[in-house]
Amino acid sequence: METIQVRTKEKQDFPEITGAVREKVRNRGWQDGVLFIFVPHTTAGIFINEHADPDVVKDISALADRIIPEEFPCRHTEGNSPAHAKSVLFNNSLYVIIEKGDLVLGTWQGIFLAEFDGPRNREVYLKFMTDGG
Amino acid sequence: METIQVRTKEKQDFPEITGAVREKVRNRGWQDGVLFIFVPHTTAGIFINEHADPDVVKDISALADRIIPEEFPCRHTEGNSPAHAKSVLFNNSLYVIIEKGDLVLGTWQGIFLAEFDGPRNREVYLKFMTDGG
Amino acid sequence: METIQVRTKEKQDFPEITGAVREKVRNRGWQDGVLFIFVPHTTAGIFINEHADPDVVKDISALADRIIPEEFPCRHTEGNSPAHAKSVLFNNSLYVIIEKGDLVLGTWQGIFLAEFDGPRNREVYLKFMTDGG
Repeated sequence: METIQVRTKEKQDFPEITGAVREKVRNRGWQDGVLFIFVPHTTAGIFINEHADPDVVKDISALADRIIPEEFPCRHTEGNSPAHAKSVLFNNSLYVIIEKGDLVLGTWQGIFLAEFDGPRNREVYLKFMTDGG
Repeated sequence: METIQVRTKEKQDFPEITGAVREKVRNRGWQDGVLFIFVPHTTAGIFINEHADPDVVKDISALADRIIPEEFPCRHTEGNSPAHAKSVLFNNSLYVIIEKGDLVLGTWQGIFLAEFDGPRNREVYLKFMTDGG
Repeated sequence: METIQVRTKEKQDFPEITGAVREKVRNRGWQDGVLFIFVPHTTAGIFINEHADPDVVKDISALADRIIPEEFPCRHTEGNSPAHAKSVLFNNSLYVIIEKGDLVLGTWQGIFLAEFDGPRNREVYLKFMTDGG
């Protein structure tokens, strides 16, 4: 298993990690299989979406706040339950197919960490399973 | 890796693809393992839910519009950020367990492509990993 | 494939199943790989989030009702489309990395079944794939 370190910079921050993931895949020589990408945090998530225009993830961030407003009354005394709920909605894991040593992604797709309770130091786990192809 | 082609017919359209997926599994003779189903688009998604009553996915579609209204103001100049955000909420990938050459699904479960910015020609990637079982 | 039985106790109920999953992993001697956890129901889901303070999942439950209100008008004559839509938003499957015979989870992470139309008897499927590590 490999780990990527990500420093998030704001309360809500969606840094792209496609390059860091691709670098690990190349360094390890992973060829053909499936790469599992898992976030071990409960107020962060991970998603795939457009990385060409950075305004897209800004809009997604604004929509996340519309769906789950920060001012929602919490029982949890830390008061960050909106961040926990966003983590559930965005999901804390995904996978990417690997072929010929590279990520199989659509033209517009990039991988983003979703920070909902930053800024913090976050970790992303990478686990590769090969089919021997 | 296999690809399924899907022609969506409306702006928001959730065509069922269970039959097309099952046909690929049978044609390829995939027996026991996990089938990874990945959508390489940023304004589409994929989900599993009830396929017996077609009104269920119509209700899910109406609820998606309630959660993320089309009229939400976008920075993204293409103006389709609600479709991008729906893609994130619905997710662009899932997996299905395969046993004895068939999909392991609950009685009421079907697999649906989720189009949020159609009509378009869409692709769905299928990657099978066997455990040799 | 293994199955876990879960009895949910309320209309909306998020019982933790981390212990039951860990027990299956140990009993089966699954060592290194990925464990796929799949819910074969269309009004239930599964998610990973904080299990230290039980108030967190209560807040997540309240937020789910805010996002998808029970009184939303349905075409589906059973009237439980909000439960179907919540199942889609929460997702009906996830995976956990397994190393040295145990679940790789963050300090605060637990696995929860998400019941949206209970109380009912629910099943959770477990499929393990090893990388021979």
